[in-house]
Amino acid sequence: MTLHQSVFESVCRQAREAALLTSIADTLEWDERTGMPLAAGEYRAEQVSMMRASAHRLRTSGQYGEQLQQLSDTASDESVHSDTVATVRELHRDWQRDCKLPTELVEQISQATVRGQQSWDAARKANDFAAFAPALSKIIDLKREAGQRMAEGTGRSAYEALMDEYEPDARVESLTQTFDDLRTSLTKLIHSIRNAPRQPNVDILKRDFCVDAQRQFSRRVAAAVGFDFARGRLDETSHPFCTTLGPNDCRILTRYQRNWLPAGLFGTLHEAGHGMYEQGLRTEWFGLPPGRYVSLGIHESQSRLWENQVGRSLPFWRWLYAETQSTFSPQLDDIELDTFHFAINQVQPSLIRVEADEATYNLHILIRFELERRLIEGTLSVNELPDEWNSQYQSCLGIHSETDADGVLQDVHWSAGLFGYFPTYTLGNLAAAQLFDAAKKQLGDVDGLFQRGEFQPLLEWLRQNVHRHGACYTGEQLVQNATGEPLSADHLIRDLTDKLQPLYGF
Amino acid sequence: MTLHQSVFESVCRQAREAALLTSIADTLEWDERTGMPLAAGEYRAEQVSMMRASAHRLRTSGQYGEQLQQLSDTASDESVHSDTVATVRELHRDWQRDCKLPTELVEQISQATVRGQQSWDAARKANDFAAFAPALSKIIDLKREAGQRMAEGTGRSAYEALMDEYEPDARVESLTQTFDDLRTSLTKLIHSIRNAPRQPNVDILKRDFCVDAQRQFSRRVAAAVGFDFARGRLDETSHPFCTTLGPNDCRILTRYQRNWLPAGLFGTLHEAGHGMYEQGLRTEWFGLPPGRYVSLGIHESQSRLWENQVGRSLPFWRWLYAETQSTFSPQLDDIELDTFHFAINQVQPSLIRVEADEATYNLHILIRFELERRLIEGTLSVNELPDEWNSQYQSCLGIHSETDADGVLQDVHWSAGLFGYFPTYTLGNLAAAQLFDAAKKQLGDVDGLFQRGEFQPLLEWLRQNVHRHGACYTGEQLVQNATGEPLSADHLIRDLTDKLQPLYGF
Repeated sequence: MTLHQSVFESVCRQAREAALLTSIADTLEWDERTGMPLAAGEYRAEQVSMMRASAHRLRTSGQYGEQLQQLSDTASDESVHSDTVATVRELHRDWQRDCKLPTELVEQISQATVRGQQSWDAARKANDFAAFAPALSKIIDLKREAGQRMAEGTGRSAYEALMDEYEPDARVESLTQTFDDLRTSLTKLIHSIRNAPRQPNVDILKRDFCVDAQRQFSRRVAAAVGFDFARGRLDETSHPFCTTLGPNDCRILTRYQRNWLPAGLFGTLHEAGHGMYEQGLRTEWFGLPPGRYVSLGIHESQSRLWENQVGRSLPFWRWLYAETQSTFSPQLDDIELDTFHFAINQVQPSLIRVEADEATYNLHILIRFELERRLIEGTLSVNELPDEWNSQYQSCLGIHSETDADGVLQDVHWSAGLFGYFPTYTLGNLAAAQLFDAAKKQLGDVDGLFQRGEFQPLLEWLRQNVHRHGACYTGEQLVQNATGEPLSADHLIRDLTDKLQPLYGF
Repeated sequence: MTLHQSVFESVCRQAREAALLTSIADTLEWDERTGMPLAAGEYRAEQVSMMRASAHRLRTSGQYGEQLQQLSDTASDESVHSDTVATVRELHRDWQRDCKLPTELVEQISQATVRGQQSWDAARKANDFAAFAPALSKIIDLKREAGQRMAEGTGRSAYEALMDEYEPDARVESLTQTFDDLRTSLTKLIHSIRNAPRQPNVDILKRDFCVDAQRQFSRRVAAAVGFDFARGRLDETSHPFCTTLGPNDCRILTRYQRNWLPAGLFGTLHEAGHGMYEQGLRTEWFGLPPGRYVSLGIHESQSRLWENQVGRSLPFWRWLYAETQSTFSPQLDDIELDTFHFAINQVQPSLIRVEADEATYNLHILIRFELERRLIEGTLSVNELPDEWNSQYQSCLGIHSETDADGVLQDVHWSAGLFGYFPTYTLGNLAAAQLFDAAKKQLGDVDGLFQRGEFQPLLEWLRQNVHRHGACYTGEQLVQNATGEPLSADHLIRDLTDKLQPLYGF
């Protein structure tokens, strides 16, 4: 074994040990959100923070950093497999980021965001933005400082350095360009829809859908599209999510609403999409960059693809609708397939992001992207934020909230210090459309496959073109390699138009 | 702060940290047994063993041991609160035991028992004791050596040293005396029952009891007797147990059988009894001896008391029977309370310990106690074991198994290295009867309380006399203090006779 090899193995061992500790913390948090007794929270917090602190200690140790530096210096000289190169590059990047932030600043941010979330929660309940403003200002100042420190010597802005944590190497300039294109086209599309001759009847989705039947049905659908229950579970929680607790242990969570069928059904498809990405990562690389997801944008592309490109398509429902009718009989007995399909594809501007449809959702994100960028840059003050929020909603979506609770206070993200996170949602939507178009082109008759309930070819295409690469490329490179062109808004706009035009008849 | 105080606090901090790690391992194992994906086992084992190894390192560190030695040397000179004395005494005892076993022996035992359980599982399925014999011999040799090492300089036998892990300070001589009394009386009682003029109709318990209704009902009954769901959960698993994951997080698990009502119902009462003991420990001492259970015998006394003394009593069913009938209607509509009460109190010799009734159960234990003692002493060889097992069953219970699978291979304990564990089951049964009699004497009209569904006074009595003392006394002292007399078989025998005589009419 060369010195290089033995150093590489030592670094991998330490990274895997940190991942083991992190996976334990994640397991404890999964349990916390799936029925842990109410009074158990305090001790649970001690357990989780012990695990996270131990993982952090491993990931920031001096010896580990020196080894990474040594590998990094020699990596370019050697002809090695790209998994190895990616491992060194990404672990070194993580280490540098972790070490650029002084412990004191990390602790200040941690305290400020714990208090920030409490303050936000109370302020939202009381519809009182002013009560949250001081905590938010503090968080912004600290995150700006963190961003500036991480950006030092990289030629990037503080906001880009913050984005880096969720979407490595994303740039504001190219994002702004893509998002501007998207805004223009979406606004036109939504205008056409608002004045369209036909409108869907969504009341049929608000009938009485037995929760236990929904539960069985969601499980059946998740398994049918390819979520592997031998290596995963589906549970219930108040805020759905997906978490991975080991190379063969992916947990997805959803929630059911008796009088709103789409919540549980599309929620499950969304989380199953996240889950199938995690299940498609190479298990032998678990805990190391080749075995982990590349970015939140790509992660979201997988959930959105199964939720929207697959789950809201007509061929999918040609396969599933008769079964849906019999599962929930008599609720949908009198409803034609086309009526149902139109209803689940309603597009209508609304106030709350998490309830928004496939098209208008992105406008919510574009507003947040601009506002949070300006907050970090210091060109928008916290005091001006609510008015600016409302004015943007008015100009982009043609509506505005009467209350801050349903407006600027609706999301938890900023109170938790998550600046630079929002754009990944729309990146995911764009990538989902673009990847799906490429898959269709290569797979041929995807509609026919869906109508027969055959999803394995699509999943296999995603495995080969997205999942198995882990974090070996950036998100942008991954999309370029898989689709042959850089990420753009074109595919999403064209696909939405192709689907919605015949439905609405504009 | 005196030196003594600061050393004491340092020791407590380390013990609490080890307990935190152990509680994390327990949480991971709870998850493993409540639906973890099948393929996740290997990584889960890594997570658990990392936590247990870290806890073990803390508990056996040299500096920790020196501090305990120092505290132990001065403890007798000082007039300190008994919680402190108990903490030093018990932690010192744990440390000494942990350190008496060389790491190599601990690892050998760990490997032998992992293989032992695999070998036992296969041998039981194949009904082939000879296939398991070599693995069992190996385990016995290793456990004997461990017992001898732990017994060194204590004046106790190797078997007593092994028992010490489950029932601190238990002695074979006094146990044998008590168990012999029990055997004589039980044999007489069972003989009378066999020839009694009346026999129960247990077929009524084998009707169709909707599992979902059982689930709701078990929850309701567990809450009614006092299990606190704000600090605990009730779940399902294949082998019911109770585990505590934090000072306010006790998890009990049960299983339901559609055609055998007692399984879920008495299983839940049993585990709720364990759970209420854990919930009655003082939370501020969590992770230290005053906040932990004293022995497995006392733990079992709490589960048995709620299962048998409470749950199989007539007053309890005067309270609950009408509700039971309506919950499972029409299954019990035609059955009188007395008929039902007789059925759930059937006594009949049977082959399988875990399915045995309240009375004959103890004979299963007495057989195992004698056999495992002789195996460790070396006065019984593994080859002689099956014949000896069958001959004991014939003489004690009047039956014997046609297969080793339902005979000597039925329990997992020995394959897992659990020698000295079995007697705690019967100690629990004896203590349950004796504690319950003392509680009745002090509380007055317990029958009246039960008929009205009032269990708080009994629970409060147990809190004061058992739970709150944690491990400050030995199990024996605890029973003596609570009941005013040493543990004996008298109460169990008298109570069984008082209940069964009128039912069977002997």
